[in-house]
Amino acid sequence: MNWYTEQWSQNCRFSIAYDKEIYSEKTAFQQIDFYQGEEFGTFFTLDGLMMVNEKDEFIYHDMIVHPAFATNPGIKKVLIIGGGDGGTAREVLRYSSVEEVVMAEIDERVFRLCQQYLPVTASGVEEDSRMELRFEDGLEYVRNAADQSFDLILVDSTDPISVGEGLFTTEFYNECYRVLNKDGILINQHESPYFAEYAENMKKAHRKIKTIFPITHVYQYHMPTYPSGHWLFGFASKSFDPLKDMDANTWNDFGIKTKYYNTDLHKGAFGLPNYVKEALK
Amino acid sequence: MNWYTEQWSQNCRFSIAYDKEIYSEKTAFQQIDFYQGEEFGTFFTLDGLMMVNEKDEFIYHDMIVHPAFATNPGIKKVLIIGGGDGGTAREVLRYSSVEEVVMAEIDERVFRLCQQYLPVTASGVEEDSRMELRFEDGLEYVRNAADQSFDLILVDSTDPISVGEGLFTTEFYNECYRVLNKDGILINQHESPYFAEYAENMKKAHRKIKTIFPITHVYQYHMPTYPSGHWLFGFASKSFDPLKDMDANTWNDFGIKTKYYNTDLHKGAFGLPNYVKEALK
Repeated sequence: MNWYTEQWSQNCRFSIAYDKEIYSEKTAFQQIDFYQGEEFGTFFTLDGLMMVNEKDEFIYHDMIVHPAFATNPGIKKVLIIGGGDGGTAREVLRYSSVEEVVMAEIDERVFRLCQQYLPVTASGVEEDSRMELRFEDGLEYVRNAADQSFDLILVDSTDPISVGEGLFTTEFYNECYRVLNKDGILINQHESPYFAEYAENMKKAHRKIKTIFPITHVYQYHMPTYPSGHWLFGFASKSFDPLKDMDANTWNDFGIKTKYYNTDLHKGAFGLPNYVKEALK
Repeated sequence: MNWYTEQWSQNCRFSIAYDKEIYSEKTAFQQIDFYQGEEFGTFFTLDGLMMVNEKDEFIYHDMIVHPAFATNPGIKKVLIIGGGDGGTAREVLRYSSVEEVVMAEIDERVFRLCQQYLPVTASGVEEDSRMELRFEDGLEYVRNAADQSFDLILVDSTDPISVGEGLFTTEFYNECYRVLNKDGILINQHESPYFAEYAENMKKAHRKIKTIFPITHVYQYHMPTYPSGHWLFGFASKSFDPLKDMDANTWNDFGIKTKYYNTDLHKGAFGLPNYVKEALK
């Protein structure tokens, strides 16, 4: 048995058994490794950090996509930044009301390899006629995008190191604000409160977003293969409030079957522990 | 650097660095080991499974105690089954309205060693005049207890193996029902939904409790050092509903400062993911 091991902090490690490493490549942007094992199925890492595995990808992808649609069921134009595995696009495309999805992923190899090795997330995405795939830097993409061109931006990024770094900057959040419609919503990968290094990134991101958007929340979910299993998304918005405006009936009328998300859990996800609220102050 | 490693499933491992093992003892009931390290402080394991560490014990102890008090602020008589580290008793004793706390812990050595090595949870418990410490089997204790003698039972047990096994039986839950007052609440350590073996125990416990109590819920919290970080308590009750009857104002009037629990999070904790609801059906 082989073990993929991730250092969650200097003093904490998480390991997953795999049968074989099925692919490895160093692209211009990062190191990509695909593994296959019994319990977690196929999984891949970027620069040695767990990104997606077949056992719990549904949790992350439910939670990055559905809370925004339950808050504003009228979303039609969506921009995905990152998200190269395709899982976020897959969930967005389940809404037949969505007309246009742009996905700006810096590293085309991530997407191509997921098409080959991880069809559970990547399959069908490129084929959908509403989809525009752009293999370019997300920060560069929003810099050049027209004002108010999207209802929703989903930042499905790595941690703020290497290729993910620009997606945690004030400039990036400002550009997101600009390209969002007057009712626009920004969801961003918001790190985690438990281990010090991740908590620092969480605080920094929140501080920046708070100065730009009038409505800012953070919500949580249980993602066992990410450090500490306690992971966050940011919910920033120009007009919609994810608690006051969430419309359970309308969302349930979409008829989208989910394995993690539901509208009760939606409300609960915003109920953060005191130590997290304190850190976000 | 030394590593304490716990097998979360056949294919998943969690490891914590420690500087030294500070104490080790095989009692009549179990293997007890105390470690000390930088990030997690002092921690101890029973039969090689993480029980309590200084970094996140506050999460578990907040969540086993406070939801019941926010649902019924009139709780006066409390029975703790297990809980040898003292952390559950510590939180209960913060309510000046509580008149009597019985703690039935099978292994006195756990409590004595925590008094010595883990004062953060055990200190002050024995000295409180409202406290009755009984070092005996929890199942045996409830068998012999009088009808309707407690307002609240907190089952702070290990997993359903070795000494914890009896605390997951129908007989035990029946006895709990009998010794609870007409408004009584039972909170029990309810395992976890993510890894198969734990999920099996979760399902079994819920099936049994549902046949006995008229009101049964399961609630969740983020406990990073327990397998998957997604951990559950059961909330079973004769009359109080933890969502309808939770009184935020009254609980906040207690003025109890908590690092994890708050009344918004209380409501959210009962919003389970679909895959967990499905498993509990």
